[in-house]
Amino acid sequence: MAENGLREKVLSLDSMNPWIKRLEYAVRGPVLARAVELEEELRQGVQKPFTEVIKANIGDAHAMGQRPITFLRQVSALCLYPELLSEPLFPDDAKQRARRLLAACGGQSVGAYTASPGIEIIRQDVARYIERRDGGIPANPDNIYLSTGASDAVMTMLKLLVSGEGRSRTGVMIPIPQYPLYSAGIAELNAVQVNYYLDEEHCWALDVGELRRALRQARGHCQPRVLCIINPGNPTGQVQSRKCMEDVIQFAWEEQLFLMADEVYQDNVYAEGSEFHSFKKVLFEMGPTYSSVVELVSFHSISKGFMGECGLRGGYMEVVNLDPAVQQQLSKLVSVRLCPPVPGQVLLDVVMNPPKPGEPSYQSFIREKQAVLSDLARKAQLTQEIFSQVPGIRSNPVQGAMYSFPRIQIPARAVQEAQARGFAPDMFFCLQLLEETGICVVPGSGFGQREGTYHFRMTILPHVEKLRIVLKKLSQFYAKFTQEYS
Amino acid sequence: MAENGLREKVLSLDSMNPWIKRLEYAVRGPVLARAVELEEELRQGVQKPFTEVIKANIGDAHAMGQRPITFLRQVSALCLYPELLSEPLFPDDAKQRARRLLAACGGQSVGAYTASPGIEIIRQDVARYIERRDGGIPANPDNIYLSTGASDAVMTMLKLLVSGEGRSRTGVMIPIPQYPLYSAGIAELNAVQVNYYLDEEHCWALDVGELRRALRQARGHCQPRVLCIINPGNPTGQVQSRKCMEDVIQFAWEEQLFLMADEVYQDNVYAEGSEFHSFKKVLFEMGPTYSSVVELVSFHSISKGFMGECGLRGGYMEVVNLDPAVQQQLSKLVSVRLCPPVPGQVLLDVVMNPPKPGEPSYQSFIREKQAVLSDLARKAQLTQEIFSQVPGIRSNPVQGAMYSFPRIQIPARAVQEAQARGFAPDMFFCLQLLEETGICVVPGSGFGQREGTYHFRMTILPHVEKLRIVLKKLSQFYAKFTQEYS
Ligand SMILES: Cc1ncc(COP(=O)(O)O)c(C=O)c1O
Ligand SMILES: Cc1ncc(COP(=O)(O)O)c(C=O)c1O
Repeated sequence: MAENGLREKVLSLDSMNPWIKRLEYAVRGPVLARAVELEEELRQGVQKPFTEVIKANIGDAHAMGQRPITFLRQVSALCLYPELLSEPLFPDDAKQRARRLLAACGGQSVGAYTASPGIEIIRQDVARYIERRDGGIPANPDNIYLSTGASDAVMTMLKLLVSGEGRSRTGVMIPIPQYPLYSAGIAELNAVQVNYYLDEEHCWALDVGELRRALRQARGHCQPRVLCIINPGNPTGQVQSRKCMEDVIQFAWEEQLFLMADEVYQDNVYAEGSEFHSFKKVLFEMGPTYSSVVELVSFHSISKGFMGECGLRGGYMEVVNLDPAVQQQLSKLVSVRLCPPVPGQVLLDVVMNPPKPGEPSYQSFIREKQAVLSDLARKAQLTQEIFSQVPGIRSNPVQGAMYSFPRIQIPARAVQEAQARGFAPDMFFCLQLLEETGICVVPGSGFGQREGTYHFRMTILPHVEKLRIVLKKLSQFYAKFTQEYS
Repeated sequence: MAENGLREKVLSLDSMNPWIKRLEYAVRGPVLARAVELEEELRQGVQKPFTEVIKANIGDAHAMGQRPITFLRQVSALCLYPELLSEPLFPDDAKQRARRLLAACGGQSVGAYTASPGIEIIRQDVARYIERRDGGIPANPDNIYLSTGASDAVMTMLKLLVSGEGRSRTGVMIPIPQYPLYSAGIAELNAVQVNYYLDEEHCWALDVGELRRALRQARGHCQPRVLCIINPGNPTGQVQSRKCMEDVIQFAWEEQLFLMADEVYQDNVYAEGSEFHSFKKVLFEMGPTYSSVVELVSFHSISKGFMGECGLRGGYMEVVNLDPAVQQQLSKLVSVRLCPPVPGQVLLDVVMNPPKPGEPSYQSFIREKQAVLSDLARKAQLTQEIFSQVPGIRSNPVQGAMYSFPRIQIPARAVQEAQARGFAPDMFFCLQLLEETGICVVPGSGFGQREGTYHFRMTILPHVEKLRIVLKKLSQFYAKFTQEYS
């Protein structure tokens, strides 16, 4: 019994899993919670200084009005309701793909469980995609595991990699700033988070000297065994140079680190001179000394790119040089959850194996895809332009991904005010911004940043005209905010 | 460096997460692996004593030829490809539902992330479903979390519940035989599995005396805090009596155990005199002494029932009496994975909120639903009838779920032979059965069974005519097998 005479809960904050308590996921944290409340208040007719909440907190293209790519949805609808195969409504290439995918499903239905790593022919299509992407370096379908979004695959790999107690706990090196799935996963699994800082002064580049520093320091209190890279970067938007990737691989090779390459933004590269290289490609081009040794997993997702199909929860990972005995364990582990969602598998297949020249849907598919990507490139540019004009805001170019992560100066009085109210200073800024403008962004503290610096992350996804307004409003608010607290 | 001069892997059997190594998931274990090989051999024209592999290892209705329910797929296809809303192909009620669901999606697209616990109106529909099911006992949408199949929700709850080290590790009581998601989840989380045995002599009833024994014994070496129940049972097919459920609740109340009720087969009840009661309903009907205290979570899935939509990975859990602070932690935890797959959410919604009398699709929906359920009932009956005629096989009636779990006598010489080859005796039986007949079933050892008893689990899902043949072949093989080893 508790002191108040009520029975204590079996499951309470005291008795629950302590590692879960520790984890944080800022992308859907307190700012979003308040944004949802504000939306409800607006709906109920409460007066606000804005008429609409704009959720620039999450990389969710469709939610921001991007239209789905027609061909992807045609194939999906055909697979879900095969009666449509006899309708003249759909182009032949969509029907052909649907027939092929259905033939690979148990009972020809997407309602059957698939093999736990995903449907075999889809894994083959993924392998062919990777080979084309990487200039012919071979990919083996057996090394490809489809997943429930990249989130699921990242967690699965982290799970395999953690072990040990005390000083021999697995250390996982992650960039700061990072996408908070990593810090949350590490917390949940009671591994040790080892921070390496990206170099804001050099466009968020990854510097091997910094990796070395972080590793050296970590070796005192844990066993660093994993190096996570996010390229193109979230929240930071940088695209790594090939040289830098080689250095990273060299480092992983020397220091015996397992490489986790989060490459979900591989199609989202906008800046001139920036180009996506997969870690696998660079690894293999460095020759067998490296390519036969370095253990690597790469993640991809249907949530980003030009398709933005977040809700379908599809993705894959490719493992390279994984110990065959461990790979058996991985296969066993994924079997417990039965299989990834089949509509997500289907959609992934079409992304991997898009319409080819000469097929009926080819032209329109390419047109839709290019329209999305060039629109994103324009918005990346626009964001950078507008922020660069605001005194006190310093923003690196958005070379890739879907976010701007500008640094903001916060006046000392605002810092004090925030601390008095129990908020991180940038959380305070974001909450104020939301209350006054309806714009929902995520504070830099949710991703990690150097002590004493402040940032926020904003997606570049709103329609270009709306984005322009959002950026203006945000800049004006920032000016007002700094003035108020100066 | 390893002794052979090769570099050691960073991630090896020695260095990987030891808890993952321990887990097993027999439903997709070695028998299935061999079945998949045999299918491939057949495809390549290798001669076998059979022409087809029959996968009776997993509760996957569509894979066994069950047709999807038309209305469910119509709404799904409309949501995936809303251009179809203007086509006369679809009935108005399907369109209306699709419009309502799309309006609740970000950007009106199923490609947007939803709220992490699922789309709000779907959670409301689930709450209304539960209220109807439970004779009006209120359900709060805020207590409902949609999930990626029930597997995901079960793992999430287990995650919250585990804590402690050594003797204070969380003990989780599970039935033996059990569905191996539970043993796998417990192993993965390094909790302590506490077995209570179902009473095979009494149709796999749950006996509170046995719960008490198991609890008492466990208290010496762990802290039992969770009691898992599967009702209707998998692999055992029993449906619990109301009286038994009251005893279980009383026990959980007395012993301060958190109740996890796996009720994914709630629509799969066939036997005369058997009826499904939800644990929540029974709890509330026992009055406030119990209903205001006992912490309960109930799981449901779109994979089973009459719809069998395994591949869409949909489901929900309802939490009752959860500490509000813990519930916040749960909400935070699910947000890391972003959201359950939206096509699964959509399909769940239609199951929860099916066509109503007077709506255009009502008649055909009911007809299709009843056809599936009465077919299953017939197959449950048939399975029981045929097995009961085979000397050496003893099978309880299949009151519910989708499986028969007969006990088989295995001759001493076969047991020796199995042990010589390094197999559990029932694994040996199942592998031999597969090689000679192409029938794939799962050994009882994968679910747990009393020492010295042997079983296998077979689904009742093949078409009735094929099921009859499978049962006959299986019985004949069993006779031959026992003779051979006598
Ligand atoms: C870097 C990165 N990795 C992984 C994910 C997970 O995405 P999903 O699970 O939708 O594939 C995201 C989502 O924003 C991301 O930004
Ligand atoms: C008792 C039980 N619980 C949970 C599940 C998980 O099913 P799903 O994840 O497909 O909802 C199953 C699947 O067979 C089951 O039998």
